[in-house]
Amino acid sequence: MKEVINYIENNKENFVNELIEFLRIPSISNNPENKHDMVKCAEWVRDNMKKAGLENIKIFNTDGHPVVYGDWLNAGIDKPTILIYGHYDVQPIDPLEFWTNPPFEPVIKNNIIYARGTTDDKGQVFIHFKSIEAFMKTQGALPVNVKLMIEGEEEIGSPSLDKFLNDKKELLKCDYVVISDTSMYTDELPSICYGLRGLAYMEIEVTGPNKDLHSGSFGGAVDNPINALSHIIAGLKNEKGKILIDGFYDDVVDLSSKEREEFKRLPFDEKAFMDELDVKELFGEEGYTTEERKTARPTLDCNGIWGGFQGAGAKTVLPSKSGAKISMRLVPNQDPGKIEKLFINYVNKIAPKSVNVNVTALHSAKGSVTPIDTPAIKAAVKALREGYGKEPVFMKEGGSIPIVNNFKELLGADTILLGFGLPNENAHSPDEHLNLNNFHRGILSISYYLNELSKINK
Amino acid sequence: MKEVINYIENNKENFVNELIEFLRIPSISNNPENKHDMVKCAEWVRDNMKKAGLENIKIFNTDGHPVVYGDWLNAGIDKPTILIYGHYDVQPIDPLEFWTNPPFEPVIKNNIIYARGTTDDKGQVFIHFKSIEAFMKTQGALPVNVKLMIEGEEEIGSPSLDKFLNDKKELLKCDYVVISDTSMYTDELPSICYGLRGLAYMEIEVTGPNKDLHSGSFGGAVDNPINALSHIIAGLKNEKGKILIDGFYDDVVDLSSKEREEFKRLPFDEKAFMDELDVKELFGEEGYTTEERKTARPTLDCNGIWGGFQGAGAKTVLPSKSGAKISMRLVPNQDPGKIEKLFINYVNKIAPKSVNVNVTALHSAKGSVTPIDTPAIKAAVKALREGYGKEPVFMKEGGSIPIVNNFKELLGADTILLGFGLPNENAHSPDEHLNLNNFHRGILSISYYLNELSKINK
Repeated sequence: MKEVINYIENNKENFVNELIEFLRIPSISNNPENKHDMVKCAEWVRDNMKKAGLENIKIFNTDGHPVVYGDWLNAGIDKPTILIYGHYDVQPIDPLEFWTNPPFEPVIKNNIIYARGTTDDKGQVFIHFKSIEAFMKTQGALPVNVKLMIEGEEEIGSPSLDKFLNDKKELLKCDYVVISDTSMYTDELPSICYGLRGLAYMEIEVTGPNKDLHSGSFGGAVDNPINALSHIIAGLKNEKGKILIDGFYDDVVDLSSKEREEFKRLPFDEKAFMDELDVKELFGEEGYTTEERKTARPTLDCNGIWGGFQGAGAKTVLPSKSGAKISMRLVPNQDPGKIEKLFINYVNKIAPKSVNVNVTALHSAKGSVTPIDTPAIKAAVKALREGYGKEPVFMKEGGSIPIVNNFKELLGADTILLGFGLPNENAHSPDEHLNLNNFHRGILSISYYLNELSKINK
Repeated sequence: MKEVINYIENNKENFVNELIEFLRIPSISNNPENKHDMVKCAEWVRDNMKKAGLENIKIFNTDGHPVVYGDWLNAGIDKPTILIYGHYDVQPIDPLEFWTNPPFEPVIKNNIIYARGTTDDKGQVFIHFKSIEAFMKTQGALPVNVKLMIEGEEEIGSPSLDKFLNDKKELLKCDYVVISDTSMYTDELPSICYGLRGLAYMEIEVTGPNKDLHSGSFGGAVDNPINALSHIIAGLKNEKGKILIDGFYDDVVDLSSKEREEFKRLPFDEKAFMDELDVKELFGEEGYTTEERKTARPTLDCNGIWGGFQGAGAKTVLPSKSGAKISMRLVPNQDPGKIEKLFINYVNKIAPKSVNVNVTALHSAKGSVTPIDTPAIKAAVKALREGYGKEPVFMKEGGSIPIVNNFKELLGADTILLGFGLPNENAHSPDEHLNLNNFHRGILSISYYLNELSKINK
């Protein structure tokens, strides 16, 4: 390992410069205008896989954005095969006016790199590339068999991936999946994520009159789609944060006392959390701690709303339409398909009859829990301990990585989630960033991990 | 009158061509980008006043957009002096995608002219210009003393006008004010509007966390400003259309039985009204008819709302901010200043403590009622009867013309509202239009009106 570690130490600066190139490509998967950039980014991933020393590299086209694959399978059949999954696509950049620097012009300040995709997920994908490169350049080999699959549709719900996994089942066959797309619990505290929430993302469109009207001449005569939409949204949760959709909690397994004890052991500083977000009060489901609410309980949030006049000043319009995006985070055992139906039924039930309401399911994911007593998890504990020089913690995360369930169902493989981001690195907000210290320690940790995995008896 | 009428008949086409020039100027008062167009439009108004034969024409600069003034005061001191008020500014044009033709490229179809400002208010202002021109070109004189004051800030609440009226009290002194900025009750039914609603236009901004967050990682921990705003908006009215703001109805004088009888006489076809707006149900305050609700009862409408992600697809953001524009239409005796305070207090009362709420009053206007037994109103009845060949009706209108109260308070003059638009001409919506038949009959009616006014004994 010494040569591998030395290589990583000596190339610190080069790795960051390469990452900057990767971050410069505006690979926003939800924007049709960036279609060409998505192809360019896939090609960049392909070329960097080649540089790392991988073989059988290929860009697979899908109905949406391409998937990039590469592998190195010469460690021997007695060694485990791991599939490293990540994504090269990034979130949209709006509201652009809140970015300190342009989102695709990376800037480094105080050893922190700022750009869209730094923490979610280009920076974390790149940790794996550079670990592999360190082995290949110094040992000419990897300690285990490795497959890499980097997709371009994670931020839009991976619509092409089910088909891809089905078609390429043989190619992707593995013992474990490794993903770095989560956060550490807090800075310098290496963390293994063993639970993810699911997701059901909905859109509501409310139509009142068939055209925008003058609110003076028509106000009082017809219902207003914004007022009606507000009424619907207000009816989704009560003032104690409980979701009111009929049947919503039916399949939720309540937290065990053991699990609640584990939550208490996490070093959560509520005061610091509130200060950082600049809120005077926290808010969520009554009866649960903040930590439980944001990772282990289901939630409902409005992600966007629009309607009528949004400019400066006063326009007295009674708009024809308004709409909102609303997503629910689900916990294991809640089925997103069932929740979508319950949501649609409930919204139709509470919607005023004086407007037309159309509800669409935009995308969904099941929640997941990974067993924590497996050899691969034990190896991860050791590797993180070596990479960071301290004991890692186990945690759940509130976000969703839909593919974790797909890997379990289609490939039969458990996923090990080793995140090197931080929860406050603005993954989906302006000024997204990544601490380069964790980038560097991530490369070390993943290198140790490949080494630890090679000790597992198959 | 014969020569005057002949001149109007012979110049039908010229008048429309001139109006098209007027409509081509994008005089959107609320958009700073159109500042230059506002000046251009004021100059166009000045030049057309000159063409009509007015004197003492002047563009007065204000802190905002200019006011254009012109007069002809040679009818003698025994003749009444009327002040004709109108505005050359227009509403914003969004949503632009719903316009069949570009809003500043007038198109005529089936004797209807389509463009922003046709009915509100350039087309109606121009009716007065052409009546004056008809007298001046054929008689070399007007039957009464006339002052014209055409402003450029009506659509943004006339912020500079109070000061202007105060400064120019002597210049604007008159016996009556005449405004054509309202609608006729229905097509070919000449109408005199004797009541207008007031307005209090508010903006609410809700702030949750100090930045946009990932709804997976933070959902359940902090309140969501869109959900909180929806809760506030939903709390403003109950399901029966009653406004819940404490004290809101305190000063409302209920409709008299005589007034309710008059409402019943108006030819309102509820089925046709619903069909035209394509709604399956009407909605408004319980206990009142649609006609009463939309002109004689106070209302509350959300005019705009925004927050979070509004693009295509799914973005899992928990936004930092959201906001809404909310206006209330007020009836005479409700004081807009008092209502603004009640609104702010109530919103602060019902707002969740887990978010910051900021409420601003954007603009306001008092409601008004004009006495209908005055000589000037009787003259209007005669003039409309001659212009249209049928008996005019008296009606109230749901919209606000703030200046009507200012004229009463500052100049002591009652306003006569003679509208030639129609309620369904999309005054504040895409595809705004004006029936050229009413444009033409309007010019005839106003000419008859000038003649009738000259018979009033001062």
